[in-house]
Amino acid sequence: MLSQIRHRIHNIRQTFEKASIDTLLVSIAENRMYLSGFTGQDTGFDESAGVLLISGDHLVLATDSRYEIQAQQEAEDFEVICYKKGLAKELPAILEKLGTSRLGFERRRMSVSQYDMIREQLTSVELVPVDNLCENLRECKEEVEIEAIRKSLHLAESAFSDFLENLESGMNEARAAWEIERRMREAGARSVSFPVIAAFSANAALPHAIPSERLMENSQPLLFDWGAVLNGYCSDISRTIVLGRADETFKKVFTAVYDAQQKAIEAVRPGAWTKDIDAAARNHLHEKGLDEYFGHGLGHGVGLAIHEAPSLSPVAERNVELKENMVFTIEPGVYLPDWGGVRLENMVVVRANGAEVLNSLDVKLF
Amino acid sequence: MLSQIRHRIHNIRQTFEKASIDTLLVSIAENRMYLSGFTGQDTGFDESAGVLLISGDHLVLATDSRYEIQAQQEAEDFEVICYKKGLAKELPAILEKLGTSRLGFERRRMSVSQYDMIREQLTSVELVPVDNLCENLRECKEEVEIEAIRKSLHLAESAFSDFLENLESGMNEARAAWEIERRMREAGARSVSFPVIAAFSANAALPHAIPSERLMENSQPLLFDWGAVLNGYCSDISRTIVLGRADETFKKVFTAVYDAQQKAIEAVRPGAWTKDIDAAARNHLHEKGLDEYFGHGLGHGVGLAIHEAPSLSPVAERNVELKENMVFTIEPGVYLPDWGGVRLENMVVVRANGAEVLNSLDVKLF
Repeated sequence: MLSQIRHRIHNIRQTFEKASIDTLLVSIAENRMYLSGFTGQDTGFDESAGVLLISGDHLVLATDSRYEIQAQQEAEDFEVICYKKGLAKELPAILEKLGTSRLGFERRRMSVSQYDMIREQLTSVELVPVDNLCENLRECKEEVEIEAIRKSLHLAESAFSDFLENLESGMNEARAAWEIERRMREAGARSVSFPVIAAFSANAALPHAIPSERLMENSQPLLFDWGAVLNGYCSDISRTIVLGRADETFKKVFTAVYDAQQKAIEAVRPGAWTKDIDAAARNHLHEKGLDEYFGHGLGHGVGLAIHEAPSLSPVAERNVELKENMVFTIEPGVYLPDWGGVRLENMVVVRANGAEVLNSLDVKLF
Repeated sequence: MLSQIRHRIHNIRQTFEKASIDTLLVSIAENRMYLSGFTGQDTGFDESAGVLLISGDHLVLATDSRYEIQAQQEAEDFEVICYKKGLAKELPAILEKLGTSRLGFERRRMSVSQYDMIREQLTSVELVPVDNLCENLRECKEEVEIEAIRKSLHLAESAFSDFLENLESGMNEARAAWEIERRMREAGARSVSFPVIAAFSANAALPHAIPSERLMENSQPLLFDWGAVLNGYCSDISRTIVLGRADETFKKVFTAVYDAQQKAIEAVRPGAWTKDIDAAARNHLHEKGLDEYFGHGLGHGVGLAIHEAPSLSPVAERNVELKENMVFTIEPGVYLPDWGGVRLENMVVVRANGAEVLNSLDVKLF
């Protein structure tokens, strides 16, 4: 682990000059873990398990007494400093030791009230907002990360297979979602990577349906979207099944979405662009007269965060050139109001010769 | 529900003049629910299910398409506006309709990057940081809220009783924590109010121990701290038990903590001060020579948030005069390094004649 961390630290330091900073304050939990190995979790938007302070020649992890032992054990390369009165008050002394004059901070994760407190304490340090310094490094995964994602995905798939084998008829959405979560947790997942979606019949037309009391019925679309967090890494998968006989609408929609997913997977290779991958799926649905019912992007990066770069969407701000070892979802969907929907989601890695699909579970399960 | 929401809206509007604002942007999820009834959840620190915009005569809930139907159903008094390009871009049009010139925003929940985006869009509106406008209203609970908290607590207690009845010897901490969580979730809790703590033997000396592989052993302190979220309301409870024979250290520490909790409960009444309640427990532990092992505050408010005002601590910034219908925890603890610890936590409501303890579960369970 240590050599990886050192490699990442080396890389993040390479970004300092362009960002005009000499020290970086890392407060986003995934970046903190990526750069230090410390797995402490923030339990709320205004709660923090600590921050990293990375300068050209110092590595500091500042946290409170709750996390002190864990931080020392996990972040071996870092000097652990325990603050008693909160970060803002103790920051001047730490930064003086580091010789900081321009401190980069992740503005996505700093509240205005934190900023005001820190600003008040730091009279001789310039605060420099930065965006995505570490996120950009995380876009291409190391092999050890890809293996961690694969394990997280296989855990999620095994849980779902077991759920299907033990399916009771007449189960409602909320119970189904829980039965999937329960199996992931009992198999060792620290948590779900997002609340499990189980959406039946017309509810499957809502891409982010909240599980309700609606019952599972034969011949209706049953849409599931779920994932686990295992050793810090997320997985994300969707399947849509039908019990009993599939009607013509289901067959038509399912086949169109399935083929759209295949077209997108086939388009993946280093040097292709994210908007082209999205278009490969979207154009196929257009040919089938269904593209107007595909209202979201094709996919998103997955790693330490459930949603990370790159975004594969026609409206994404960045059109990203694919590089080897990027990991993202490919999840076309077609949603027909009052009928339901079909979404099929796999995870892929960009390899030299094209996409490697990380999933083991069949896409067609009925 | 509607008359409650209207009452709350009336109260929040009363705070505008002192805060020098004519409109309030509400982005903290608990405040959003309290003031509108909308139960959408933010799934991450940079993710939002929407915001409220409350002016003197308008109520707007701005959200995205994922939450549109839910928002319309739950927030009956609010005009639901669905943004397509994110809040910042559509805010100017909404605020023009509201006639806003001074917009209060909750600076604890607004990131610097959000602030920068909004600031860029709003050329003729003054942005005014505000703190705790709604949190202060939430400090004293309505009876319907107290009942919701009571139900959440009873669910958590029933889950724990069932866990104890089915206790398997040799269980480890992680498994025990999961067994408690599983029972709360299966009884209808939307989630745990914080990750369940199960800390055995020397691990019980760490107030925020993370459940590990450590096994349950006879004659050792077994500390549990857990709670549920039910219908939006949190519960929080701790118990420390021993299996088999309790040794003299355990008996001495348990009795001291138990009595300290009693002293604090007896001190609760309208007009008393939070620091006095803390001192009632702390002084008792001082008499027993154990106060140096009680390293945290005595308690905290609980409601829609698991930690809210008031804070009962010797180092709290505010010393708060207790008012009727405040709800908070009373949780003294004594932690002996290398031995373990005892924490006992109940939830109380301030009533005209003193504390009403919301718990049904015995404090002494061995």
